[in-house]
Amino acid sequence: MPSDDLLSLCKRRGFIWPSYEIYGGVAGMFDYGPLGCVMKDNIVNTWRSIYKNREGFIEIDSETVNPVPVFKASGHVDEFADLITYCKECKEPFRADHLAKGLHDNPDVLSAKQLEELLRKNDVRCQECGGELGEVEEFNLMFKTTIGPGSSRVGYLRPETAQGIFVNYLNLYRYNRDKLPLGVIQTGRGYRNEISPRQGMIRMREFNMMEVELFVDPDNKDWDRFHIVENEKMTLIPQDGKEITVTVKESVEKGIIANRVLAYFVYTTQQFMTALGLDPEKLRFRQHLSDEMAHYAADCWDAEALLSYGWTEITGIADRGCWDLSRHAEFSGADMTHFKRFDEPKEIDMDVVKAEHKALGPKFKGKAKDIAAAIESMQPKDVKDDTLTITVDGEAMTIGKEFFNITRIKEKVSGERVIPHVIEPSHGLDRIFYSILEHSYTYDEKEDYVTMRLRPNIAPIKAGVFPLMDKDGLDVLAASIYEKLRNAGVEAYYDTSGAIGRRYARMDEIGTPWCITVDYGSIEEGAEKGTVTIRDRDSREQRRIRADDVNCVIGELLAGRPFSSL
Amino acid sequence: MPSDDLLSLCKRRGFIWPSYEIYGGVAGMFDYGPLGCVMKDNIVNTWRSIYKNREGFIEIDSETVNPVPVFKASGHVDEFADLITYCKECKEPFRADHLAKGLHDNPDVLSAKQLEELLRKNDVRCQECGGELGEVEEFNLMFKTTIGPGSSRVGYLRPETAQGIFVNYLNLYRYNRDKLPLGVIQTGRGYRNEISPRQGMIRMREFNMMEVELFVDPDNKDWDRFHIVENEKMTLIPQDGKEITVTVKESVEKGIIANRVLAYFVYTTQQFMTALGLDPEKLRFRQHLSDEMAHYAADCWDAEALLSYGWTEITGIADRGCWDLSRHAEFSGADMTHFKRFDEPKEIDMDVVKAEHKALGPKFKGKAKDIAAAIESMQPKDVKDDTLTITVDGEAMTIGKEFFNITRIKEKVSGERVIPHVIEPSHGLDRIFYSILEHSYTYDEKEDYVTMRLRPNIAPIKAGVFPLMDKDGLDVLAASIYEKLRNAGVEAYYDTSGAIGRRYARMDEIGTPWCITVDYGSIEEGAEKGTVTIRDRDSREQRRIRADDVNCVIGELLAGRPFSSL
Repeated sequence: MPSDDLLSLCKRRGFIWPSYEIYGGVAGMFDYGPLGCVMKDNIVNTWRSIYKNREGFIEIDSETVNPVPVFKASGHVDEFADLITYCKECKEPFRADHLAKGLHDNPDVLSAKQLEELLRKNDVRCQECGGELGEVEEFNLMFKTTIGPGSSRVGYLRPETAQGIFVNYLNLYRYNRDKLPLGVIQTGRGYRNEISPRQGMIRMREFNMMEVELFVDPDNKDWDRFHIVENEKMTLIPQDGKEITVTVKESVEKGIIANRVLAYFVYTTQQFMTALGLDPEKLRFRQHLSDEMAHYAADCWDAEALLSYGWTEITGIADRGCWDLSRHAEFSGADMTHFKRFDEPKEIDMDVVKAEHKALGPKFKGKAKDIAAAIESMQPKDVKDDTLTITVDGEAMTIGKEFFNITRIKEKVSGERVIPHVIEPSHGLDRIFYSILEHSYTYDEKEDYVTMRLRPNIAPIKAGVFPLMDKDGLDVLAASIYEKLRNAGVEAYYDTSGAIGRRYARMDEIGTPWCITVDYGSIEEGAEKGTVTIRDRDSREQRRIRADDVNCVIGELLAGRPFSSL
Repeated sequence: MPSDDLLSLCKRRGFIWPSYEIYGGVAGMFDYGPLGCVMKDNIVNTWRSIYKNREGFIEIDSETVNPVPVFKASGHVDEFADLITYCKECKEPFRADHLAKGLHDNPDVLSAKQLEELLRKNDVRCQECGGELGEVEEFNLMFKTTIGPGSSRVGYLRPETAQGIFVNYLNLYRYNRDKLPLGVIQTGRGYRNEISPRQGMIRMREFNMMEVELFVDPDNKDWDRFHIVENEKMTLIPQDGKEITVTVKESVEKGIIANRVLAYFVYTTQQFMTALGLDPEKLRFRQHLSDEMAHYAADCWDAEALLSYGWTEITGIADRGCWDLSRHAEFSGADMTHFKRFDEPKEIDMDVVKAEHKALGPKFKGKAKDIAAAIESMQPKDVKDDTLTITVDGEAMTIGKEFFNITRIKEKVSGERVIPHVIEPSHGLDRIFYSILEHSYTYDEKEDYVTMRLRPNIAPIKAGVFPLMDKDGLDVLAASIYEKLRNAGVEAYYDTSGAIGRRYARMDEIGTPWCITVDYGSIEEGAEKGTVTIRDRDSREQRRIRADDVNCVIGELLAGRPFSSL
C-alpha cells in the first residue's frame, strides 16, 4: 500500500496532520489529531503496562532543553552530525550521502573528504538548479538555542530522552535505595534537525520516544524472569545475515545474543510490538554489523518493521556497557558507581602511598605531621614525575620522591565500586504508530472499502454509537449510551448522519472495533425493547445486547472476550 | 511552611529534581522524579476526565518547535518580552521591573524609557558588582532556534500550547463536522526563556501546561450543562477588589462574569482544583483589571492559590473573543470562519458590482462578455480610486468607473460566516502540582512528623506493602500482593527495611493513603491466617482484610469507600 494513501487517510480522519499547514508547513513535522493523540497514548500505556506494571521499572520526565555539558559527555556535540553540501548557486542544502547513492556500496561509511571527491569525480550537481556543489562538511543535527539572555549559554534540544535518565542517575540510584538492577523509563520529545526530511513520519525533526534504561551489575547480566520466557521463539538475523529461529534460551547459549538480560528484552520488544498489533510476519530483529555498532556497545539489535519504505528500524535494543555513566562521571566529576557488597569481606592486595616520616621531620619541623597526613591521603596514581602535589593549610606543595614511597599492603574490603552497565530498549514512538497503521490497513478493492484492523486496545475509538434516526427518542437513548461510555473513560464516537452503512464504514476506516446502533426495536414495546445492536468490525457479525449492559460488554470485549460468545 | 523545606523533601523523596545538577544545574528547570511523574500524570488524567469524558472535548498533540509566522500572528514575536538591563561592568542581566520594585507602585506598566529613567534617577546599580547599569531594552522570552541547515529559517519553542490548536483550527473544525461548539484540549511543554528565574517551580523556563480552547458561536455564549451547576457557589474577586460569594447563575446575572459559558468554566476550574486537593480556603478567583487584561479579551479570571510565595496565578480562564482566529486568518490567508445556518433563509440588502454592458460592448467588442463577468465577480470593496483591477484570460486590466456601478440588491441568504470566539481555561501544570504539595503538607512539630495529605486519586503511590520481617515467607506473600497491585495498574511501593513505624513514616511523608502489612498472623494457623493489616494514613486506623481482597479493597477505597466501613 502506498504510504501516500495512508497519510491522506490519516489527515482526513484526524490521526495526524502536517504541522503549520496554513503557513505552508514545515518538512518533518506532524501534529497528532484527536484520533492519533488517543492512539499514541494507547501505545504508551501498553509500554507502561509492560515496563512499570510487570517489570516494576520507574518513570521520570526530564527537561528537553539541555545545557552543553550534557551533550559534550554523551558525544552528541562532536558526533551527532550528517554530512552536508550546499549548491554554490542556489544555496540549496543536500545530504552528501544521499547524493552519493548508487555511486558507492555504502556511502554512510565515507568521510567528508571521500564523499566530496566521489561527488566531484562523478560530476554530481545540484538537484534543484544544476549548479556546482560546494565542500562537504559536517552539520550537527541538534537544534541549538541559548538559555537566558545573552548568547553565552548555549542549549540544545535533546536528541534522545535517555540523557535525562543518565544525568539523574544519582537521584535514581538513591530512590532505588542504592540497589541494582534499576530500571527507568521515559517518554517524550526528541529533536533531530534533519537536513531535508522525507518519508513522512519515519524521519521527523521533532519526534516522540519511549526509552528504557536498565542499569545492571556488569558481572550479572541475567534477569529474574528469564525462565518464564526462555522457551519462547524469536526470529533473528545475526551479523552473518542468515535468518534463524531460536528460543530465547538458545539465542544466548548459541552465542547469538550477548547475554540473558539483553535476550530477555529483545524478546520483550517482540511481545510489545505484537501486542500493539504489528504483523509478526513483517517484524524482524537484526543484529548491528560491527561497523554499524557504536564502539562502546557490547551488542545491539534493531527491531525492524516491513513498511512501504522497506525494512525500517522502529526500536533499538542495546547493551551499552558502562559508556554512558563513565562519560558523565568523567565530565561532571560525580561518582556514578554502584557499591557491590561481597558476600563476605575479601582480603586484597593494594598499593598505598606512605610518608617517609624520617625524611619529613628534619625538613618540615612542626608542619611534618600535617604533610605526612596529606601524603597518605593520596593514591599511587596521583604520583606524577616522581612527585606528589598536596594541599596543606590551603596551600599547594610539591613533594619530591624522597619524602614518600609506594607500598603494597593487604586490606580487608567489604565490597567494590562498579560502574553499572546499561541495557537500553529505545522505541521510536511515531514510527511504531505509523507501522501499526500500515500493518492494520486493509483495502478491499472489489468493495472499494477500507478497514483498519487495529487491536481493540490500540484503537482510538472503542465504540461508535448511532441512533438509527436522529429523532423519536432514538437519539436520546443513543446519546445516553454515548455519555455513559465516555464517563467510564471509554473513547466513543457519536454519529447521527447518513445511512447506517456509511456510519459503519466511517468507523471501519478508523479501526473502531465495535458499533452500537439504537433502533425502533430498542424503544418500542416488544421482545427487543431495551436492547441495541452491537456490530463487530472484523467479522461484521451483529448481536443484540441490553442497552444497560453496553459499558460492561465493551469492557469484557476489551479484556479479550470473543465477540462470538455474546 | 517555607518552600525550601518542601523542595528539599521533593528532591529527597523523588518528586522533583533540579535539572542537570551534576553539571551545576540550570535555573528554572526541574525534572519530575518517579513520584512526581506519576502525580503529574494523575493531575492530567483528572483534567482529561473532566474535559474529555464529561464534556466530550477532543485532544491533540502538536509540535513544540514552531516557524516564525505562527508567533507573528499570535503577537509573541512583537509582544512577548520582559524589559532587561545589563551591568556595564560585569555584564550581569537584570529584569528592569524587578530592580524598580519599591520605586514605583506598579513598575510593570512602565515603558523601557520610563524604567530606565526611574532606575537612573534612583541611582540603582548592579546587584552583583555595584557597576553602572546600561540601557533598558526589550528581551523576547521565546527560545530561538533555526529549523534545518543555514540560519534563514528561524523557529521558536512555543510559549504556550494554545497556538498549536489555533493553527489546526481548520482540521479540528472538519473533524467536528463543521459544528460549534468545538472543544479542544492539549497538554505538553511550554517554554519561556526567563531572564533570571527564581521561586522554584513557580517560574520555570521549561514548563508543562494543560490548555483548553473552546470555540463557540459569538452570538451564543451559553453552555448546555450550565443548569446543572447554576446554583453552585463561587467566591470571586471582581475588578473592584471586593470579595463576593455568589452562585454561578448570579455571577452572570449580576454582570460579574461576562457570560454563561465563561462562568461555567470558571466554576469547572474550581471543581477541578478542589478535586485535585487544593485547599478551597487558599483558592480564589480574581478578575483581571482593565490594564492587566489583553486588549482583545472580553473578560479574564485568574485562579490563584495561596502559597508561601503569596497569592499565585495557577490558571487563567479568559474569553479571548475572535482574536486568535482572526489573527491567524489574517496572517495565513486561511478562511477560519464557521458557517452559521439561519433557521430559515433571510432576505438581506447587499451592495454588488454590476457591469455597464452598454459601455463595455462598443469599447471591448468580443471580449466584453468575459470582462463583464469578471467585473461582476468583484465586490464593492475591490474598487480602488474609482477603478477595478480584473483578470481576463490571465491578463490584468484596469477598468474605469464608466464601465461599472455599485447597486444595492436584496438577496436570500441561508446563513452567515462568523469567526468563532474562544473560551480558554489555561492551566499551569507545574504550579498546580506544586500548590497541591504545599496545601497537602502537614508538619506535626511535637512528633517532628510530616504527613502529605494528598487525595488518594492524586497520590503517586496508592499502597505501601510491607512484610513485617523479610523472611519466613512473609516476604513471599508481601511480594505477591505487591505484584498483583502493580499488575492491576495500581502504583505500589514495596519496603522491607526498618521498623514498621519507620516504613509508615516514609509512606506518610510522600502521601501514600494506605499501607498493607503482612505479619506472622497472616501465614500461621489461626483466625488471622490469610489476612493482612491495612492502615489508613490520615486516621492512622488499622483493619484486617483478606490478602486475596487487597486489590479489590484498594479499588473500592480509591472509588471513595470510607476506610471506617472496612
